[in-house]
Amino acid sequence: MQVKTLTELGEGESLRLTIGRLIAGDQVLVGPGDDAAVVATTDGRFVVTTDTMIEDHDFRLDWSTGFDLGFKAIASNVSDIAAMGAKPTALVVAVALPGTTEITWLEDFADGLNAGIRELAPGASVVGGDLAMSEKVFISVTAHGDLQGKEPVLRSGAKLGDVLAVAGTLGKAAAGLALLQRNDSSTSAFDELVEIQKRPMPPVLLGVVANNSGATAMLDISDGLVKDASRIAKASNVSIDLTGSALQGFEAVLEQAAARLEVSGMDWVLYGGEDHSLLATFPKGTELPKGFKAIGNVTQANGNSVTLDGIAVSIIGWDSIRG
Amino acid sequence: MQVKTLTELGEGESLRLTIGRLIAGDQVLVGPGDDAAVVATTDGRFVVTTDTMIEDHDFRLDWSTGFDLGFKAIASNVSDIAAMGAKPTALVVAVALPGTTEITWLEDFADGLNAGIRELAPGASVVGGDLAMSEKVFISVTAHGDLQGKEPVLRSGAKLGDVLAVAGTLGKAAAGLALLQRNDSSTSAFDELVEIQKRPMPPVLLGVVANNSGATAMLDISDGLVKDASRIAKASNVSIDLTGSALQGFEAVLEQAAARLEVSGMDWVLYGGEDHSLLATFPKGTELPKGFKAIGNVTQANGNSVTLDGIAVSIIGWDSIRG
Repeated sequence: MQVKTLTELGEGESLRLTIGRLIAGDQVLVGPGDDAAVVATTDGRFVVTTDTMIEDHDFRLDWSTGFDLGFKAIASNVSDIAAMGAKPTALVVAVALPGTTEITWLEDFADGLNAGIRELAPGASVVGGDLAMSEKVFISVTAHGDLQGKEPVLRSGAKLGDVLAVAGTLGKAAAGLALLQRNDSSTSAFDELVEIQKRPMPPVLLGVVANNSGATAMLDISDGLVKDASRIAKASNVSIDLTGSALQGFEAVLEQAAARLEVSGMDWVLYGGEDHSLLATFPKGTELPKGFKAIGNVTQANGNSVTLDGIAVSIIGWDSIRG
Repeated sequence: MQVKTLTELGEGESLRLTIGRLIAGDQVLVGPGDDAAVVATTDGRFVVTTDTMIEDHDFRLDWSTGFDLGFKAIASNVSDIAAMGAKPTALVVAVALPGTTEITWLEDFADGLNAGIRELAPGASVVGGDLAMSEKVFISVTAHGDLQGKEPVLRSGAKLGDVLAVAGTLGKAAAGLALLQRNDSSTSAFDELVEIQKRPMPPVLLGVVANNSGATAMLDISDGLVKDASRIAKASNVSIDLTGSALQGFEAVLEQAAARLEVSGMDWVLYGGEDHSLLATFPKGTELPKGFKAIGNVTQANGNSVTLDGIAVSIIGWDSIRG
């Protein structure tokens, strides 16, 4: 049987086939199919964030399947909810595709959404969406979370003397991107790095754990460790000193790939984006939650928002406009 | 002084200039600038909907200014919140633009968002967003609402004997689109219709009023009266009979424009999309809220989801994939 395209099926049937595959969430009072969805909150507040992925800017269709992109759309959004110290509950997904796209691509995308939710944010679900036509693939996700009675962990709460800690990978997604760009069969030994680029695995559940452990500031690393650390520093009016020796373990796992591509693994660790790992500060003496590793300290504002072993580093990283 | 482009300014500065213009809302606990925003609910639930507008599919940049598009992005989303019987509270806005876009366009867009909120959904605000780069302009909005303790008004609640009523314009947005497509200076007498196409004025506050008055089903007319009425009919397992005489007033105001373009004004009334007016059913005998006009009745399911004076009409209208 020939696979039908979105234009052949029309909006209603394409949506029906796709929505039918989505898993149902714990806090959904009214799901997809009406003008809007209704979601329960446990404490009279909800957390909301939005993020967009655009073909040839944020992904390439010859590198990523529909499944990969569904998974990544979940990962890059629920990590922002986690970074507020909240539990992801519900998402809406707007996707624009060429009319010639086969329905199987969209079904695969829905399966990727499901897998992302199952692996990273169990209990959450997609409660609504929009399907439109465009020449390039465009994916826009809005994610919601529940603070379960806790205060949100902002970027602005880091205090002098706090410990800086990270949960998740550093530089692996950037290494994976570099390997994809090299497009050389000799790099197949590094499939794990490419997988992290295509389907990041942020430690989403640790967002609530960090909040419960007293994290003073937190964000997810989307634009690189240094650039995102500088955001905490600026919002909190402090400086952050990264500890080189604590980053060596992150560099070590990238060593072989870096050697193969003749680049610096430490650059990936410091400046690579898209790992969506959690970067948080905790009061000195806090027993760090399992999964977090200390990588620096909060110091007095000293003119450089981020230093490495006391030496200023350039605040560079990913800029979604300039690239 | 030369106006700078988004590429020249970069993401951070472009966002800062734009976000700085946005008005603040009533229920915002944490606004733009962190990983996510936090919004208060009054009853432990929130309503959420998403909608996308794509250049050359949903709008043309030579017809609509940034201000128009900001206004329309608000209108087309808060009307979905109103259609659930809820009060709009907060929105997130993702926008992708060519890097060569001048910052003044984005500032104008922000002013249009503000104007849409002020005129249609006072008390609401934009609490977050995303700015990215793409060849075509892409606008994706997610809107949130508060049910204030009431039950949501779904599409599925229409009952045999209910009165069908509409609040807002019918066919004006479609007439405006036809006038723009004609691109003829002789049509300038119909600027009001063109304005409705560019900046729809759905009666958003009447959503809560309809809910309080006991509306049994409701939606906003985005794809045309007949197509959207059929959605209520199908979801409620009933048929809907439109009353031709009640639609004549809507046709009359389109008469001159229809004559000029040599088309049927009644076709705009029945099949024209994008007015985002509220279509609702009320129990027989309900005193309709001011602003609503009776235009039909809910009948037993009879094989035709929508009839006009008892005669079957084709269920056609806008399909966002097929056009």
